[in-house]
Amino acid sequence: MFTPKPIGFVRSPYSQTTAVPRGLGAKHDAEGELEILPEFEAGLQDIEGFSHLFVIWVFDRSETAALVGPTPIDGIPHGVFATRSPFRPNPLGLTVVELLGREGNRLRVRGVDMLEGTAILDIKPYLSGIAADKLRRGWLDAAESKAKA
Amino acid sequence: MFTPKPIGFVRSPYSQTTAVPRGLGAKHDAEGELEILPEFEAGLQDIEGFSHLFVIWVFDRSETAALVGPTPIDGIPHGVFATRSPFRPNPLGLTVVELLGREGNRLRVRGVDMLEGTAILDIKPYLSGIAADKLRRGWLDAAESKAKA
Repeated sequence: MFTPKPIGFVRSPYSQTTAVPRGLGAKHDAEGELEILPEFEAGLQDIEGFSHLFVIWVFDRSETAALVGPTPIDGIPHGVFATRSPFRPNPLGLTVVELLGREGNRLRVRGVDMLEGTAILDIKPYLSGIAADKLRRGWLDAAESKAKA
Repeated sequence: MFTPKPIGFVRSPYSQTTAVPRGLGAKHDAEGELEILPEFEAGLQDIEGFSHLFVIWVFDRSETAALVGPTPIDGIPHGVFATRSPFRPNPLGLTVVELLGREGNRLRVRGVDMLEGTAILDIKPYLSGIAADKLRRGWLDAAESKAKA
């Protein structure tokens, strides 16, 4: 197995987990930066052409793992692989951000839900999405329907 | 930094990288399984409700990294963070699969582009996508337009 190394760090308005919007209907439109280490900047070539990016990052302030736990959305326990809980066997986060601009090794992005200083492991271009009418979203659909009722 | 550990392994029809469809218009509709280790099976609770999943996995047969390299799509060098190249600073793969069914610790899925035996690090529910008309896809759009012309 490999040893993960940061390719850069997130510049975020959030310094504490409690500040990140959570729960039903939470919006993630905060702006921030992905600050890539100079030695990896060459890997950003042509990234400007993409409107959206996947960011894989580390829940580095999450010290526990729980296979089943309640979410802030519905308060009901679900398996960790059916949620975005930070308490995962491998503390990996995944966020889709909108790329607003690039200045050298800094990517300005919208949609940050990471904490300030979060280590970034990888960035990938967002190539295509699954249409909303093709998606089933299990317990999340149920929670949203209940909230609307 | 954490030490990654497999939560399971991919059962795939592909045993060699050359067998995985690549290049412009490549379709990924191969079926396979995500075989989760028994000690992590509890984390799958309620996953059946989701039609699509993100799988984060390890390019474990990829031994090099290159910050800039040509893709099989257009043959033109691009930065690694603007491609899905296996030659990444952290050898992490990301695939969206359709969940066809679950039998205990085995998830039957469609959309496998990993090799047989690939180590899985994480699974997350696919909650929403970016609409096609909101996406810009840089060099990939250019390559597709050129191929159609």
